[in-house]
Amino acid sequence: MLKSSAMLRTSIRLRSKIRLLVIACLLLGSPPVRHPLPAGASTPKPQTGAIPNPLASWNEGAARASIIDFVKRVTTQGDAAYIPPAERIAVFDNDGTLWAEQPVYFQLAFALDRVKALAPSHPEWKNTQPFKGVLDGDMKSVAASGEKGLMQIVAATHVGNTTAEFEDIVRRWIASARHPTTKRLYTEMVYQPMLEVLAYLRANQFKTYIVSGGGVEFMRPWVERVYGIPPEQVVGSRAKVKYEVRPTGPVLLRLADVDLVDDKAGKPVGIHQVIGRRPIAAFGNSDGDFEMLEWTTSATGPRLGVIVHHTDAAREWAYDRESHIGTLARGLDEAPKRGWIVVDMQKDWKAIYPYDR
Amino acid sequence: MLKSSAMLRTSIRLRSKIRLLVIACLLLGSPPVRHPLPAGASTPKPQTGAIPNPLASWNEGAARASIIDFVKRVTTQGDAAYIPPAERIAVFDNDGTLWAEQPVYFQLAFALDRVKALAPSHPEWKNTQPFKGVLDGDMKSVAASGEKGLMQIVAATHVGNTTAEFEDIVRRWIASARHPTTKRLYTEMVYQPMLEVLAYLRANQFKTYIVSGGGVEFMRPWVERVYGIPPEQVVGSRAKVKYEVRPTGPVLLRLADVDLVDDKAGKPVGIHQVIGRRPIAAFGNSDGDFEMLEWTTSATGPRLGVIVHHTDAAREWAYDRESHIGTLARGLDEAPKRGWIVVDMQKDWKAIYPYDR
Repeated sequence: MLKSSAMLRTSIRLRSKIRLLVIACLLLGSPPVRHPLPAGASTPKPQTGAIPNPLASWNEGAARASIIDFVKRVTTQGDAAYIPPAERIAVFDNDGTLWAEQPVYFQLAFALDRVKALAPSHPEWKNTQPFKGVLDGDMKSVAASGEKGLMQIVAATHVGNTTAEFEDIVRRWIASARHPTTKRLYTEMVYQPMLEVLAYLRANQFKTYIVSGGGVEFMRPWVERVYGIPPEQVVGSRAKVKYEVRPTGPVLLRLADVDLVDDKAGKPVGIHQVIGRRPIAAFGNSDGDFEMLEWTTSATGPRLGVIVHHTDAAREWAYDRESHIGTLARGLDEAPKRGWIVVDMQKDWKAIYPYDR
Repeated sequence: MLKSSAMLRTSIRLRSKIRLLVIACLLLGSPPVRHPLPAGASTPKPQTGAIPNPLASWNEGAARASIIDFVKRVTTQGDAAYIPPAERIAVFDNDGTLWAEQPVYFQLAFALDRVKALAPSHPEWKNTQPFKGVLDGDMKSVAASGEKGLMQIVAATHVGNTTAEFEDIVRRWIASARHPTTKRLYTEMVYQPMLEVLAYLRANQFKTYIVSGGGVEFMRPWVERVYGIPPEQVVGSRAKVKYEVRPTGPVLLRLADVDLVDDKAGKPVGIHQVIGRRPIAAFGNSDGDFEMLEWTTSATGPRLGVIVHHTDAAREWAYDRESHIGTLARGLDEAPKRGWIVVDMQKDWKAIYPYDR
């Protein structure tokens, strides 16, 4: 577990451009304080079937109306905008779009916890950066180790094992690890209004996909339970894997080579590799999602592009242009002319998390 | 179109190991003669919904019974072998498993036709191998150009365009190109008994995937219409693509770098990348499918492995151990001890193609 939120709030500004598997993300300086909410809520169940009151946690307004209008048009037979069910592909970024991403990407919290869990087998880490920094709770040293240090953390925590072993590690972590400030399970920090969008689209015969810069193998073990999105509908960054036949049977070994960075211009590539169709709706929250929205909405025919704008410092976090996580500048600038909907979390959402309701 | 079947039957034996996108396949020496069947059948429609008489084109026997028994067991609630619908993933090789692959992989026929179509813009090809050989119908020279020559053909015919352009090229070719000996559309040369397996599995809430050494972008434009398999359920070999924003809008550019060779040990890798679940049933026909069957059937729980054995020289082609296309040796040797079903096309199948019925 993360030792303390103070550890993460160390005011370090690291402008490295490392994007390796998105674990190697930037440590945030002084994130706004978030008041923890009472514990006790359970993991949300994804909704299915017909939705009597769609987007119930959305306030009336242009954002909600635009989403509903789009869905009605593309699903109404005879409407010029009608799109057959097979082509109703909707793609969602994960970090900052379906679940929170502050004060650090949750997958980085996972990596730091992994360092601590593995430390007993690596006595040398006590005296070697960046591991020493992680173990001492000295994030300044970790950040000072730069891109190389973060890559060492990724290499030590994410690869060299089999896909089955890694899946098991993720499952165990996600079931118990808690967020440093809310003290909630990370899977409780999903956005209730977005769960409703997922359910609403699926009730209208959309296939919902995650297309995230995060590691695909970090997401697949839990997204079906939490979002109702099966493993085969998850696109993410990935390491190369190698088929190897061992005496106990075949395995897929996770190698230290990056196979896809599913971020920015990598998102349309990941979409093409895995889905092979151009989506008709895309939801993101940062400039890492820009190309995904652009690719989706610049095709002919009715298209929906949505940006979740983090505007709620009281209930969640407020950040955009200057943030090191989830930087959103170009998206804000170009949304109007591109016809993208910008969701104002503070104004458009009645609740943020399922446990807020 | 291919000039003549004689051109393809040139008795050349090229033992190169090239596997690039599986186009770069081996030219077969003296394939068995196939008697063309009367024309007139239309492209088969994939079946959907409940199947009153499943596997109708299969003769009674161990192969048919084993498939039906497996499906009944995994779909019967309360049975120890029960598997929930979400985990019912079935994977199918394409060439030689869902459609024919003689006298050359159909994608190679596509590539050769592409050379002819592009020749007017490449006057230099008249005097340059391997293109000269293709244009002159001199397959001996083409084969003599070896791996390098075949790679030149792939590079000239498969990359450098956008994914949309390539899709359009494939659509136009597949709609009109005809097989050199049957004179049928290639999409008519799909196996009726396998269409029934696809429909039967889907009626039992299986998700059916193609996992082929062939190019994924060569398959996606037509497999939904022909097999009822949507583009997002096709795994195949692929070139790298690059996102590029042009004045007319964004495109995905097909590059000359191989991204995945989805053959042999590459098949479990492709399955993992795109599906992210281990299948419970796998169908193949050659040793290129060995690892896919091994990966599928060596997991715990009920698993189905099926090899289509080409034994029917009269109605299709007969080949296995000594063939340069669809070589099947290790699969035959190990099928009994691994519990894989070997389908004898001659004995087990009442009809081969939809137009045989």
